[in-house]
Amino acid sequence: MSRTNKPPKRPWQAIAQEAQTHRDTTIASLSPPLPPIPSPLPPNVLSLPSTFLTPETLKITSLHIESLLPLLLSGTLTATAVTTAYLHRAALSQALTNCLTELLPQRALARATELDAYYATHNRPIGPLHGLPISVKEHIGMAGLRNTAGYVSFWNKIAQEDAHILQILASAGAVFHCRTTIPQTMMHLECSSNLYGVTVNPYNSSLSSGGSSGGEGALLALHGSCLGIGSDVGGSIRSPAANCGVYGLKPTAFRVPTDGWGYMMAGADSVESVLGPMGTSLPALSLFMKTVLDTEPWVTEPALIPLPWREYKIPEDKEKERKLKVGIMWHDGVVQPHPPITRALREMKESLEGAGIEVLDFPCHAHDEAWAILASLYFTDGGREDADAIDSSDEPWRPLSTWILKENPCVKALTVGELIYWLEEREHYRKEYASHWNKTGVDVVLCPVGPGVAPKHDTAKYWGYTSLWNLLDYPGCVFPVSKVDKEVDVKVEKRGFKALSGKDEENWGLYDKDAFHGLPVSLQLVGRRFDDEKVLGIAEYIGKKCGLPFEPFP
Amino acid sequence: MSRTNKPPKRPWQAIAQEAQTHRDTTIASLSPPLPPIPSPLPPNVLSLPSTFLTPETLKITSLHIESLLPLLLSGTLTATAVTTAYLHRAALSQALTNCLTELLPQRALARATELDAYYATHNRPIGPLHGLPISVKEHIGMAGLRNTAGYVSFWNKIAQEDAHILQILASAGAVFHCRTTIPQTMMHLECSSNLYGVTVNPYNSSLSSGGSSGGEGALLALHGSCLGIGSDVGGSIRSPAANCGVYGLKPTAFRVPTDGWGYMMAGADSVESVLGPMGTSLPALSLFMKTVLDTEPWVTEPALIPLPWREYKIPEDKEKERKLKVGIMWHDGVVQPHPPITRALREMKESLEGAGIEVLDFPCHAHDEAWAILASLYFTDGGREDADAIDSSDEPWRPLSTWILKENPCVKALTVGELIYWLEEREHYRKEYASHWNKTGVDVVLCPVGPGVAPKHDTAKYWGYTSLWNLLDYPGCVFPVSKVDKEVDVKVEKRGFKALSGKDEENWGLYDKDAFHGLPVSLQLVGRRFDDEKVLGIAEYIGKKCGLPFEPFP
Repeated sequence: MSRTNKPPKRPWQAIAQEAQTHRDTTIASLSPPLPPIPSPLPPNVLSLPSTFLTPETLKITSLHIESLLPLLLSGTLTATAVTTAYLHRAALSQALTNCLTELLPQRALARATELDAYYATHNRPIGPLHGLPISVKEHIGMAGLRNTAGYVSFWNKIAQEDAHILQILASAGAVFHCRTTIPQTMMHLECSSNLYGVTVNPYNSSLSSGGSSGGEGALLALHGSCLGIGSDVGGSIRSPAANCGVYGLKPTAFRVPTDGWGYMMAGADSVESVLGPMGTSLPALSLFMKTVLDTEPWVTEPALIPLPWREYKIPEDKEKERKLKVGIMWHDGVVQPHPPITRALREMKESLEGAGIEVLDFPCHAHDEAWAILASLYFTDGGREDADAIDSSDEPWRPLSTWILKENPCVKALTVGELIYWLEEREHYRKEYASHWNKTGVDVVLCPVGPGVAPKHDTAKYWGYTSLWNLLDYPGCVFPVSKVDKEVDVKVEKRGFKALSGKDEENWGLYDKDAFHGLPVSLQLVGRRFDDEKVLGIAEYIGKKCGLPFEPFP
Repeated sequence: MSRTNKPPKRPWQAIAQEAQTHRDTTIASLSPPLPPIPSPLPPNVLSLPSTFLTPETLKITSLHIESLLPLLLSGTLTATAVTTAYLHRAALSQALTNCLTELLPQRALARATELDAYYATHNRPIGPLHGLPISVKEHIGMAGLRNTAGYVSFWNKIAQEDAHILQILASAGAVFHCRTTIPQTMMHLECSSNLYGVTVNPYNSSLSSGGSSGGEGALLALHGSCLGIGSDVGGSIRSPAANCGVYGLKPTAFRVPTDGWGYMMAGADSVESVLGPMGTSLPALSLFMKTVLDTEPWVTEPALIPLPWREYKIPEDKEKERKLKVGIMWHDGVVQPHPPITRALREMKESLEGAGIEVLDFPCHAHDEAWAILASLYFTDGGREDADAIDSSDEPWRPLSTWILKENPCVKALTVGELIYWLEEREHYRKEYASHWNKTGVDVVLCPVGPGVAPKHDTAKYWGYTSLWNLLDYPGCVFPVSKVDKEVDVKVEKRGFKALSGKDEENWGLYDKDAFHGLPVSLQLVGRRFDDEKVLGIAEYIGKKCGLPFEPFP
């Protein structure tokens, strides 16, 4: 028997139960309630909303931001109508994929009522996002609500105030209607925690929604939101956007406010974590960036760079026949992507060339070295803080937590001298890469988002295609291109596969054309540091020129 | 007898002798040679150039950059003529104040010859700085030359290539004519080393030229250069500019390239070291910044922010009667400045108000806390690297090295956890200060550069007035306002002095109106992070409006 006076620790299962009950209660308070959902669900749930939601809800939530927002700003749709529709669709998305930590019906509807009253009184919207519902990743501080970062032991961490980004969006008229799931440690490219379980892919529940912003990915694919806020230090916006066939931007660091985001990783100064937009369309991303930067957030958050949003125009220098120059990185020299990714790159190459855009092969450059630097800088305390956060509640280690923290040879507690060594390596790599990029003269690079499409649960162990751009602090935009076709995207066994590395071998073994059939195939467009506007501008341009995506997405 | 096969260590005195002989040899190679200089020199050497230099040399070197450059760009003066004049005046400045580590006559004249040939062939200048001599602080890498950073043990460190900033300036047409002294460790606000001895103030040799860019300060005051490059992590550009009555700008970090500057302090990521301009006039500073940023240096140095130089226009919003708003910080709450500094602030207040500019008192905000953070972050290895750099040659510790490294209670070797703690404190302080600044609504802050004018040797132990702005990464511009007058600037003993702190007591005791009589009194204009253009724009504007400086400077 213990002799201390400490109260007995609550079993982690009781806390997880409380978390899920809380979530379910917020959903049950919805009026009218959701109809009963069938059990078991089919693996692909994308068609179910049309069965379970009213025509009015379906009509509103089928709109992308560029169609929805004008209706809100003109007063054609009320904030209450739009918020109600999205609350219902988000609640249904939760039932279908397990993507929410809580629904916010009371807050959201109260705010919508305020906004409608404002509109009625002033006959104009309160700001550029008047009445727009936005979903928010769980770790972003919202006054009075919890920030667990995926740890059971953080259950009682309550934010004192709204994060800076939320303050800005709220002033612009946004309504926050739900909060989305994250994995234990937030350092998985999947989305499972002991608090909430696994967020599954709406295209196939045996596959991952991606992570760490995995709740956002699944929710957006089901149109439970048209704009959400994710975060990314190694791929956490881009992986779920790609896996779920939606759009995402990892911006350059120090452009989007991060004050009060409720989670600071030890050594976060070394690899910059960013907040960024995810959406059901490309315009959602630029609208988010423009709205935020138009408020000059650097005046109150001094870590930010005072760079306004500079709309990018495609150069039309006819005299010099200056073409847009897109580099294609077919693989990163460490792990070759699965067949559907390579096919998407090939189809894009043809399509871009057909559109008169110059395309060249962009060689990779020491990407294995990049991972060694990143992995050394991610957990400068040897992962102790994260391990303590898991162990202190006795919750089990999720497989990918074990993998990233315990099976990762680069994770060790650094001395200040070692930290400085790795920071110098980071700087050195950034310089080398800038020189490499300059030699090619490309405007942007088109590359895989990952080594395959949405992975089977607990298998996402290769970050290189996204994390490289975190190390370099280059902006990366993800968009859907096509879908896996099990008839076309076969492994080319006859020609023989030559593994580039052990990781390559392992990744190649994960390919399963039947399991992946019909899954979104997304690609990533990357630009130089601070070229966020250019990346989105070119993404929109080539999207139109090439007619993206090549297959219909919801 | 030692049993090791290590060659016997050279005595540090032999290396220092070699350094000084090398310097003297470079000067002796000048043609025609300098005339003999009288010994002993008077304390104030400012009038001596007119005695020892030819009328042609005096004519050219008396011009400020805004008058000299048009003559070079139009071909009225050749690069060779201007370089020759500055080589002679720089050599004389060395004889008078000990401000150079070497003269570069062969390199400079060879480059000038090239530039003249270019002009003759193309009938136009090679770039915006065609033929302009620029002096360079010793630690900035120049291919084939030494970077000692003030340590005897670094005597054999030879730069492999020119620092990025020098590459840019050279492409613009600059000629580097000499290299200037720095103190041991580079972490003094004075300028003394065992390699080269003490750089003295040209106004009074018993006082310091300031530091660490002390060679630049003395050289510029004597017109041995009209534009020089210094560096600043705690006041090293601003202290010598102020002490010597010239102009200096500490820019916001990550605007001016620092690649290849030849000295990386352990933990330099924590408090950003910057390179910046010093000059004999304000236009020298903006010309430097504009020329450098117009080349888009961020394309090859990825740590830089892609912010072009944005000329600042004084707002003339007549409708709203928006006045320029200048905050005056009379003291920092820790150490009160000496009487001449306070008088200069008072005279500026009257003059600004007379010019229709709104002036308000800018309150200080926890500046003692700022120093605790800075001092903890300057030497994250507990100063071990610096101590080793001194001890390994057996050279003696200079008094200010002992003070900053051994007598500084904040200097200790940090763990990564402690480093992260202090980085968070830094971020927290930056946020607090931004909020403090926002509340006042000022455009810029006018404040002391230090707690007094040029100090007696080995007494500069209060950094707070400059280092605060390094912690905040705010740009600071220094300019001369007036001169100490022993009749006017007396201690107000009768009203009684109430010390704010032990440091204040100590500083007050250092005031000596007779010793300081006639010394330049300079002030500092500070703006928000990245407001470099605004700071220089307002400095030029108020300089004209108020008729600065109030007394004549060379």
